[in-house]
Amino acid sequence: MDRIRRFWGWGFDDAGLTKDEDRRLAERVRPFMPVAEAPVAPPTIDEIGLGPAALAPPSSLAPWCEVSDLARASHTYGKSFRDIVRALERRFERPPDVVASPPDEAGVVDVLDWAATVDAVVIPYGGGSSVVGGVEAPPGDDRPVISLDLGRLDRVLEVDTVSRAALIQGGVFGPSLEEQLRPHRLTLRHYPQSFEVSSLGGWIATRSGGHFASLHTHIDDFVESVRAVTPAGVSESRRLPGSGAGPSPDRLLIGSEGILGVITAAWMRLQDRPTFRASSVARFDSFTAGARAARALAQSGLWPTNCRLLDAGEALMTGAGRGDAHLLLIAFESADHPVDGQLARALELARDFGGVVDSPEDARAVGADASAAWRAAFLRAPYVRDSLVRLGLISETFETAITWDRFDLFVERIRQTTEDALRRVNAWPGVVTCRLTHVYPDGAAPYFTVLAPGDGLRRLDQWGEVKRAVIGAIGSGGGTVTHHHAVGRDHRPGYDLERPELFAQQLRAAKRAVDPTSMLNPGVLIDP
Amino acid sequence: MDRIRRFWGWGFDDAGLTKDEDRRLAERVRPFMPVAEAPVAPPTIDEIGLGPAALAPPSSLAPWCEVSDLARASHTYGKSFRDIVRALERRFERPPDVVASPPDEAGVVDVLDWAATVDAVVIPYGGGSSVVGGVEAPPGDDRPVISLDLGRLDRVLEVDTVSRAALIQGGVFGPSLEEQLRPHRLTLRHYPQSFEVSSLGGWIATRSGGHFASLHTHIDDFVESVRAVTPAGVSESRRLPGSGAGPSPDRLLIGSEGILGVITAAWMRLQDRPTFRASSVARFDSFTAGARAARALAQSGLWPTNCRLLDAGEALMTGAGRGDAHLLLIAFESADHPVDGQLARALELARDFGGVVDSPEDARAVGADASAAWRAAFLRAPYVRDSLVRLGLISETFETAITWDRFDLFVERIRQTTEDALRRVNAWPGVVTCRLTHVYPDGAAPYFTVLAPGDGLRRLDQWGEVKRAVIGAIGSGGGTVTHHHAVGRDHRPGYDLERPELFAQQLRAAKRAVDPTSMLNPGVLIDP
Repeated sequence: MDRIRRFWGWGFDDAGLTKDEDRRLAERVRPFMPVAEAPVAPPTIDEIGLGPAALAPPSSLAPWCEVSDLARASHTYGKSFRDIVRALERRFERPPDVVASPPDEAGVVDVLDWAATVDAVVIPYGGGSSVVGGVEAPPGDDRPVISLDLGRLDRVLEVDTVSRAALIQGGVFGPSLEEQLRPHRLTLRHYPQSFEVSSLGGWIATRSGGHFASLHTHIDDFVESVRAVTPAGVSESRRLPGSGAGPSPDRLLIGSEGILGVITAAWMRLQDRPTFRASSVARFDSFTAGARAARALAQSGLWPTNCRLLDAGEALMTGAGRGDAHLLLIAFESADHPVDGQLARALELARDFGGVVDSPEDARAVGADASAAWRAAFLRAPYVRDSLVRLGLISETFETAITWDRFDLFVERIRQTTEDALRRVNAWPGVVTCRLTHVYPDGAAPYFTVLAPGDGLRRLDQWGEVKRAVIGAIGSGGGTVTHHHAVGRDHRPGYDLERPELFAQQLRAAKRAVDPTSMLNPGVLIDP
Repeated sequence: MDRIRRFWGWGFDDAGLTKDEDRRLAERVRPFMPVAEAPVAPPTIDEIGLGPAALAPPSSLAPWCEVSDLARASHTYGKSFRDIVRALERRFERPPDVVASPPDEAGVVDVLDWAATVDAVVIPYGGGSSVVGGVEAPPGDDRPVISLDLGRLDRVLEVDTVSRAALIQGGVFGPSLEEQLRPHRLTLRHYPQSFEVSSLGGWIATRSGGHFASLHTHIDDFVESVRAVTPAGVSESRRLPGSGAGPSPDRLLIGSEGILGVITAAWMRLQDRPTFRASSVARFDSFTAGARAARALAQSGLWPTNCRLLDAGEALMTGAGRGDAHLLLIAFESADHPVDGQLARALELARDFGGVVDSPEDARAVGADASAAWRAAFLRAPYVRDSLVRLGLISETFETAITWDRFDLFVERIRQTTEDALRRVNAWPGVVTCRLTHVYPDGAAPYFTVLAPGDGLRRLDQWGEVKRAVIGAIGSGGGTVTHHHAVGRDHRPGYDLERPELFAQQLRAAKRAVDPTSMLNPGVLIDP
């Protein structure tokens, strides 16, 4: 793959918005809030002064270690709003000293060995798409920093078509993974928004949320076994379809965000490629009624592939609707059997709660099915975000999960808290919209999108204040600080309140057992 | 509940086989192997000499602490084959010194505090139905022993009908749990074979396998949050339908078998009571062909409630068939929609692999549906086991899970290993049968039932040798030492090879963090 990654923002250089698209975007937003006349120019690498690296790789590792400004700048941040703003402000204050891209697992072991001898921090980079400060240097820790990029561990090593599973290296990105599985007519069917620029190891380390709106919502359930390199050695779990032998070793690594080991490979459960599809859209007068229908659907045992509720504002902003109704997008897929019966029953449930079901033609126009077109727009959204940031706006998302009994009040409170905070920091008029990304029998995952005018160099302070307020409201409202974006550094205040204190002590103890010097991503999830 | 529990065997005194049933059972088995003329008489409590207790409860706890011979004998063992044999041999060598049955969670805390002051071991007893040596005193540890019986924490504390979840105390047994949920028209639908004599806390602590043959096979997936008492304090996770915030704290407690805390309550995900049902039976000439059909069904996304493959011998022994065919029992259930279409597609798949589908009447006779009759027989099987043991037989089950690619050879190997071992210890002719209890897209859980003639007092040695051989074959064949029976003490040899060594170190560290003196169930899962 020869496409050039953007060191300052999301994705690839050739995939951002064109100048014309940027202009149209500004026009679309301007009726709602002030927007800069022209987007600020992205930085070039020559404009960035990184300073010297504190570390030089030993000659044995040098062939695949980079110390160039471009490599170091590319690995300084993830891709959160804050990261993009800092990059646009030409601030790369704490780049890694070395970017190591080992060609194989032995190289990963070598990097950890070397880091131990020079007392360096190692940050598993994954695809670098973290939006929670999960891959940057730890503030207040003056050890040298090695960013560990597993991009060369990008192969599907073995395919078991009988069990429908594959042994896959941790560094492979979504498109390559699917391409390598295609000849076997199998698919992982995991499509987080970061699909093109995130890796299997990163998905596992961050409990990535994927394709399915219900049933198997996270990557967690598709992990058959994991292999990870730690400072204390290599750990590998047994390939098993199910087990009752003690606490799951995999579940300790899943979500460990790089602090317990570097995930080099995993056996993953795959699926046949779906051939049967059915989808539709139901319109609701109130978001609450739409949520009731989504709940009924989540509790029906029909397990829809898609059950995405967009509030009217979200429907308007994304072009899925005119803003006069809340939309419930319902879809079913199967590789084995027609799903029209399931859809018919789902639509009955939607109607029970006042939903008006679109004609098939209208439904197609909204893109209810998980079609290539919808997916393309979904995958392109972060590029749009970057353009919005370049236009001087505050653009952020908050996602959480909450049980149904508290759902209505909770969503209203998060929405209100966000709007109040935007007003308080003078980032108003803004827009706060909500959708449900995933639904469960016992609750749902609301996802809030925030767009507001930023105040020049004060923008990060404004954002920080809003973020603090929302994290606080999510926590006191009983939600989770993250349903699928991970904890990193940015969500620590919420996570510290959310996880049981004794579990944090156990996690620290488990970390010390494999990483006594806290070499791996220190400060993420827990303090060293 | 006034029914009297058997201190020497499974379940309740009034539910065992009658003399007449015992006689008919012996007649049924005799064509296959030598059987004692008459069953050995179960012990009475007067025959057991327990010796003095090493510990007396303080007066504050005395009202709910028992030191009677009956209480101590009842809590000496679980209900494994070995436990029944030892009880029938009147051997209760290491009973607990005290049986504590606190009335509430504060009492649990008090027990742990008291145990700390007298340096005692605490063994969470659950329902005492462990078949893996999970609730007995640690050999080679001479500390006094407190058996902690949570039987009085038996209430459903709160029901959230909107989210379909309930806060349930850890000590409640299956029947009472379902009875308390019934007025809310909800059900946990978790029916392990021990349903009548096991508790919610026990299910969670041992990753109990339940009702569903596919999709949600273990209790794991129904846990919304857990509350546990540890020597370091009380820990409680947040009630969430889903989360991506770090490794799951619940998944560390699920399967912890009492070594990380005493589970006092949990929020559990519930379901509506099913009203739509459809079931059938397909007959196969070969077990392999039946397994192929089960695999296709497991990979179809139809998620059958029941997908139980019985080999011909198992069908014969359980009375489900004449022993001339292997039976695949298929069932679907739903509270929301008819499931006839799913069944029809499932039967198509069965036919694709050579299955001959029974007429609806024949299918009903076999008991393919999860009907009350089948369930009653299933729940009674352990009583039959006790009678077989009293008839001098070796009666044991081995269960595991394996990916489909290795399935055929693996099953054959376990079967052969078992038969070879039985021959080696002169426990032959015996019967080894196999069924699949649970199926997954990537594998299945084979369950082996062994019946063989025992040699008087040598019986436990014979059993031990067979068990060792099978555990070894399961381990070297790539299976798990337990799919849903747990590890306890009996499966340690297999577990020690199965879990990653670094995970064991992390588990030890996590235990030390909450239980520095290894008070809780030492020797189960890991060495202190």
